[in-house]
Amino acid sequence: MALNKKPVNGMKDILPEEMQIRDYVISVIKETYGKFGFTPMETPCMENIANLCSKQGGENEKLIFKVLKRGEKLNLETATTEDDVVDFGMRYDLTVPLVRYYSNHSNELPSPFKALQIGNVWRADRPQKGRYRQFMQCDIDILGEASNLAEIELILATTTTLGKLGFKNFEIRINDRRILKAMAAYSGFAEEDFDNIFIILDKMDKIGLEGVEAELVESGYNKDSVEKYLGLFKGMNESEDTLAFIEEKMTGFIEEDVKASFREIIESVKATKGDHFELVFDPTLVRGMSYYTGTIFEIAMPEFGGSCGGGGRYDKMVGRFTGKDVPACGFSIGFERIILILMENGFKVPNQSRKVAYLIEKGVAGEALCNVISEAQKARQDGTQVLVARMNKNKKFQKEQLTAEGYEEFREFYKEGLKN
Amino acid sequence: MALNKKPVNGMKDILPEEMQIRDYVISVIKETYGKFGFTPMETPCMENIANLCSKQGGENEKLIFKVLKRGEKLNLETATTEDDVVDFGMRYDLTVPLVRYYSNHSNELPSPFKALQIGNVWRADRPQKGRYRQFMQCDIDILGEASNLAEIELILATTTTLGKLGFKNFEIRINDRRILKAMAAYSGFAEEDFDNIFIILDKMDKIGLEGVEAELVESGYNKDSVEKYLGLFKGMNESEDTLAFIEEKMTGFIEEDVKASFREIIESVKATKGDHFELVFDPTLVRGMSYYTGTIFEIAMPEFGGSCGGGGRYDKMVGRFTGKDVPACGFSIGFERIILILMENGFKVPNQSRKVAYLIEKGVAGEALCNVISEAQKARQDGTQVLVARMNKNKKFQKEQLTAEGYEEFREFYKEGLKN
Repeated sequence: MALNKKPVNGMKDILPEEMQIRDYVISVIKETYGKFGFTPMETPCMENIANLCSKQGGENEKLIFKVLKRGEKLNLETATTEDDVVDFGMRYDLTVPLVRYYSNHSNELPSPFKALQIGNVWRADRPQKGRYRQFMQCDIDILGEASNLAEIELILATTTTLGKLGFKNFEIRINDRRILKAMAAYSGFAEEDFDNIFIILDKMDKIGLEGVEAELVESGYNKDSVEKYLGLFKGMNESEDTLAFIEEKMTGFIEEDVKASFREIIESVKATKGDHFELVFDPTLVRGMSYYTGTIFEIAMPEFGGSCGGGGRYDKMVGRFTGKDVPACGFSIGFERIILILMENGFKVPNQSRKVAYLIEKGVAGEALCNVISEAQKARQDGTQVLVARMNKNKKFQKEQLTAEGYEEFREFYKEGLKN
Repeated sequence: MALNKKPVNGMKDILPEEMQIRDYVISVIKETYGKFGFTPMETPCMENIANLCSKQGGENEKLIFKVLKRGEKLNLETATTEDDVVDFGMRYDLTVPLVRYYSNHSNELPSPFKALQIGNVWRADRPQKGRYRQFMQCDIDILGEASNLAEIELILATTTTLGKLGFKNFEIRINDRRILKAMAAYSGFAEEDFDNIFIILDKMDKIGLEGVEAELVESGYNKDSVEKYLGLFKGMNESEDTLAFIEEKMTGFIEEDVKASFREIIESVKATKGDHFELVFDPTLVRGMSYYTGTIFEIAMPEFGGSCGGGGRYDKMVGRFTGKDVPACGFSIGFERIILILMENGFKVPNQSRKVAYLIEKGVAGEALCNVISEAQKARQDGTQVLVARMNKNKKFQKEQLTAEGYEEFREFYKEGLKN
């Protein structure tokens, strides 16, 4: 029986052309984040299934690829639920594994710990165009830094990296879960309704103010509250300084030092950033993950409809592992989207070295062959990329192919000696 | 309930110190193999389970981490065997996925295709010291090159890379499955016994000539054949030129062009290699995988008991996917062993840039903070690695820690201004 040539459903093979771009982007990421003092680290791709199903991953927990138990531990006869037959699962993000890692090794790590993770994650989503069930994430996180220096450094590191990759005219949108909550509390909503209200608010981009208002009313929330809530957003839109407007309105609903710290993040980034992006306070920004406790942010690219990454503060997650909370804040780049945009824009990786192809006629053997190889080895030592290949019957076609691969120079070796 | 801080049983978290070395080794590998024209490529970490269980992986097929079916496809009630409940599996090597990839994309790939793969593989081995159930492999392969240029280039590329990583005094042992078979045929063994005889021969390193002889006799093979077989190895040990000895003895049992090609590989590599390793013909070299069809080779490091990598020619594997054979040859570096040896030797990654830590007193805020960050951004642009951190109460300890991390210079920022 012939075997199946296709990759598993919903996952993809990466061809050399894309791979070159991916490798280049990764090298720029490592180099730039390195300059900010972020340290690469890695965890296994699998986690204990209980860690993955602990309600920290939201909807992603429904999409876990689960790993079958092995040997004596597996008993299919008596098994009735998935829990009976699996022990591990593929990670669906890099945050849960990072927090486990930090909890396990905090004594061996610097404080604060500035982590850089680049790795694959898996989600058993319904396969669809441009969305894969294995994809790469690229996260930076700072653990053990309570002050807003974490947010400032994360935003600057991420935007500097995007700049190095040639991205410009993008926006970083920033908000704070505590501002979100204060606005809802100010409007008179009950705390147990906040999450649901934020889910509706999150649609502002798509359905506009009226749409959000209609959905809130439809959901049965108090009309006065809805009106007061929407009034805030309308007021902001009309005010010259959105942040100042909210700061004033929220007095009494939000702590003064939270306010001051949030303003300091915005002002510090604005004062020190390049002009390739804007930092924008966006009180409609929600971010899905329930683990966020403070600042949240998102990258919006003009080339791309949705978000190209994001992050925020999650001060309560280490405590789930250790019983003791540790301040934590992270920023994730949408690696696959970045690659997609670069590919669509016809991005070419800068040439690192001269590329020469040595084509050797079939009959060249023995000492003559040694001489060619020896020459190739010398050229490689001097920094040239040398492809040594047998000359095809259709040499013209072979050279066209190699030219397309970036070989700029050819040397041909014949039994009678070098020809050009 | 507190979550589990440990990685899954048998897999490991990689701490920053090791990660630095891994990243450095990967960059040297990519750069050096790149100079030989090898192109990075990648496949998903999962494969269809039927591809993994097709008898190409030998013993590894017993060690597959299998992935549970999802949704409607999973029916635990009626399931009686593992096949009923799984559809994918984690790859246990990079060769099966490479061949599937090549079969799927050969029209889009150059010919010959020189592939570089660096990626994790998984094997559900019994956990033991220094051996992990997720580990990295690093393979180069040439598909579509029938001539011995493939072997020569693979050996030179691999040994050049090892040299760049500082390895010396190692050996590349080389043999050919066809020489192995010719020697067994010459001795009068039946072809169906070859595999079993080679398994015993493979122990020569450990149990010596007498041990191999005893095991062969014990297994019930014809005593004359055993004597003739062992006579070959004794004869070689006494002869000055092992290869010439075998070439002469095997006349009639091996094709002349196979002989000539094998000799050419050895002579070409010897004539062009550096002096950091030796290439040695080793007629006792077997290599486990049954898919090898010709040349086989292995890296033997003095610092390490066992093999540190190996490979060979496997001309019949693409045909399993496409019905049409394509010549193929590969060389795999034992990545994890390389890392282990470097770690044990106290290897330090060469410093890429100056590392400076800016320590900021807690009270520094507003414009003063902006100034510090702005300065850090400028220094980073000029190539310096700058860590911006809040000053700890125990500043002395903090500086000691940072010094251990490689920070060579400190700048301290106080409310009253810069101190040093």
